[in-house]
Amino acid sequence: MSTVLISDPTLRDGNHAVRHQLNARQIALYAAAADAAGVPIVEVGHGNGLGASSLQVGESLIGDREMLEVARENLVNSKLSIHVIPGFATINKDLKTAIEIGVDLVRVASHCTEADITQRHIGYARDKGKEVYGVLMMSHMASKELLAEESLKMESYGAEAVVIMDSAGAYLPSDVTERIAELVKSLTIPVGFHGHNNLGMAVANSVAAVQAGATILDGTARGFGAGSGNTQLEVLVAVLERMGFSTGIDLYKMLDAADIAEKELMPVIPSIKSLSVVSGLSGVFSGFAKHVERISKEYKVNAKDVFFELGRRKVVAGQEDLIIEVAMKLAAEGAVKS
Amino acid sequence: MSTVLISDPTLRDGNHAVRHQLNARQIALYAAAADAAGVPIVEVGHGNGLGASSLQVGESLIGDREMLEVARENLVNSKLSIHVIPGFATINKDLKTAIEIGVDLVRVASHCTEADITQRHIGYARDKGKEVYGVLMMSHMASKELLAEESLKMESYGAEAVVIMDSAGAYLPSDVTERIAELVKSLTIPVGFHGHNNLGMAVANSVAAVQAGATILDGTARGFGAGSGNTQLEVLVAVLERMGFSTGIDLYKMLDAADIAEKELMPVIPSIKSLSVVSGLSGVFSGFAKHVERISKEYKVNAKDVFFELGRRKVVAGQEDLIIEVAMKLAAEGAVKS
Repeated sequence: MSTVLISDPTLRDGNHAVRHQLNARQIALYAAAADAAGVPIVEVGHGNGLGASSLQVGESLIGDREMLEVARENLVNSKLSIHVIPGFATINKDLKTAIEIGVDLVRVASHCTEADITQRHIGYARDKGKEVYGVLMMSHMASKELLAEESLKMESYGAEAVVIMDSAGAYLPSDVTERIAELVKSLTIPVGFHGHNNLGMAVANSVAAVQAGATILDGTARGFGAGSGNTQLEVLVAVLERMGFSTGIDLYKMLDAADIAEKELMPVIPSIKSLSVVSGLSGVFSGFAKHVERISKEYKVNAKDVFFELGRRKVVAGQEDLIIEVAMKLAAEGAVKS
Repeated sequence: MSTVLISDPTLRDGNHAVRHQLNARQIALYAAAADAAGVPIVEVGHGNGLGASSLQVGESLIGDREMLEVARENLVNSKLSIHVIPGFATINKDLKTAIEIGVDLVRVASHCTEADITQRHIGYARDKGKEVYGVLMMSHMASKELLAEESLKMESYGAEAVVIMDSAGAYLPSDVTERIAELVKSLTIPVGFHGHNNLGMAVANSVAAVQAGATILDGTARGFGAGSGNTQLEVLVAVLERMGFSTGIDLYKMLDAADIAEKELMPVIPSIKSLSVVSGLSGVFSGFAKHVERISKEYKVNAKDVFFELGRRKVVAGQEDLIIEVAMKLAAEGAVKS
């Protein structure tokens, strides 16, 4: 029976869904529940990862140190993981501190065409004896050949696995199959997939990934995460189990953990709103959704139109300031028309 | 470009999600919005279809006549469709009245192994000059060969298409592919698929169905429907469009229709709760979910355990009374244990 290694970013990607306001009690509760269910890896932090709390992308309620310390205290068997985007996370301050607190796994991420920026962070964490993955975000914006090139860079820097993210929820299963197959063929290290549900395909895409040779999958309780949410972990575990894959997770306890997440962490369960569909079709990062809604309301423009325009401009995470520019432009055009 | 015919039971399956309390204003609003979006077929009624309002499965807020009349008034281009289960719906009273009101399409449904009971209803509606489909519910409980046999009966009775329903949301895409392919091979009439989302696969299963030769798909706005909901129509339309299938539906207006459904019809957007996962894995009809939750609370037993036991007993729609029996049994066992 094939084994799939599950990594659970409920306490990191879920922070996007609450504008980074998860508190210590919530982190403790869910970390303990995931640990009890046998989830192998639990990722914790600000939605945009280590060191990302800021006025522009949103300030987290509590700092990285407190988030990681409380998670660390509540994880017995699960590994503690962090999402690290160079630029947000500095080596000498953020990464050093996280390693001192005792993270087990460091996932260093970049936009899918920018693997170069991960070299120093990957090297540093490996030098400190940590397990390190490379992560390529917004992977739908690169061809399978380019993704393989960028992944090979990460492998050469010392990454022990590469995970591609469907940050915009833009993939259909055939898109995933061709990209994962290419990576599996090109790399000697394990390959993973992180899905979002904008087109209702997160679980199906994850299954396509393992069928194409991926051995690592990300998923969150009730899909708690940016925009329309992530691959719903308890559903994924059930489906993988039925297909004959082993995850080591106790499904019954995972359902309990998801119930806890719903009750204690989530103001609302993620769902595929009309805006999520437009976001997925346009290929815009799901983390933009809440900002787009707020800014569109402020400038009295249609949020769907803002998303389509952001898609045309091929924006990436970190370019949140462009939302205001687009909304202002649409508002001005509307004012001219009327 | 292949064409897929979309049938939208938001105003019928959605009634399950509100215990059959949709009112005339809600039906008018959504019917008009779906019609404006170019949805070809709009299905309206009590969750269990024509004539099903009762104390046991739930009384609808307004009668069949009023539901159909208000829908009829608000549909210009869309066909008005009804879900007809012989046993609930009588020919001389219910079906006759519906045809007088002006329904365009009659979908006569039975449990997947009971096509025999649809013969007279199919014959009557055809005699009255109506378009008629056969529908096999809970189709996961039959092999592909048995489904083909039952479908052939419906074809011989005069059905002009056969739709199989994944009433429990129990299918994975490969299950759909093999069944639909068998039906397409065996029948001369079109084949359709109606999905539920318990295992997060409703959209993927629907795509698998058309790839295997189905030409009719059911879907509802925001997935409004029993349990974890139906195939989410606006997502399905976006995905089909991207894959090169034509539905004739205007996606932008369909997103608006879904926004109206969310705002005006839905107390909460369907999501995959832990109980939905158990229901999908156990293969129990999604329409049972609300009853199971209520009765489990009443008898102080775990709803997950009730679902697993119902799955072992292979219950079908119409056996809602078994829920109480199972809950009582579990409660008694619990009492003995403690």
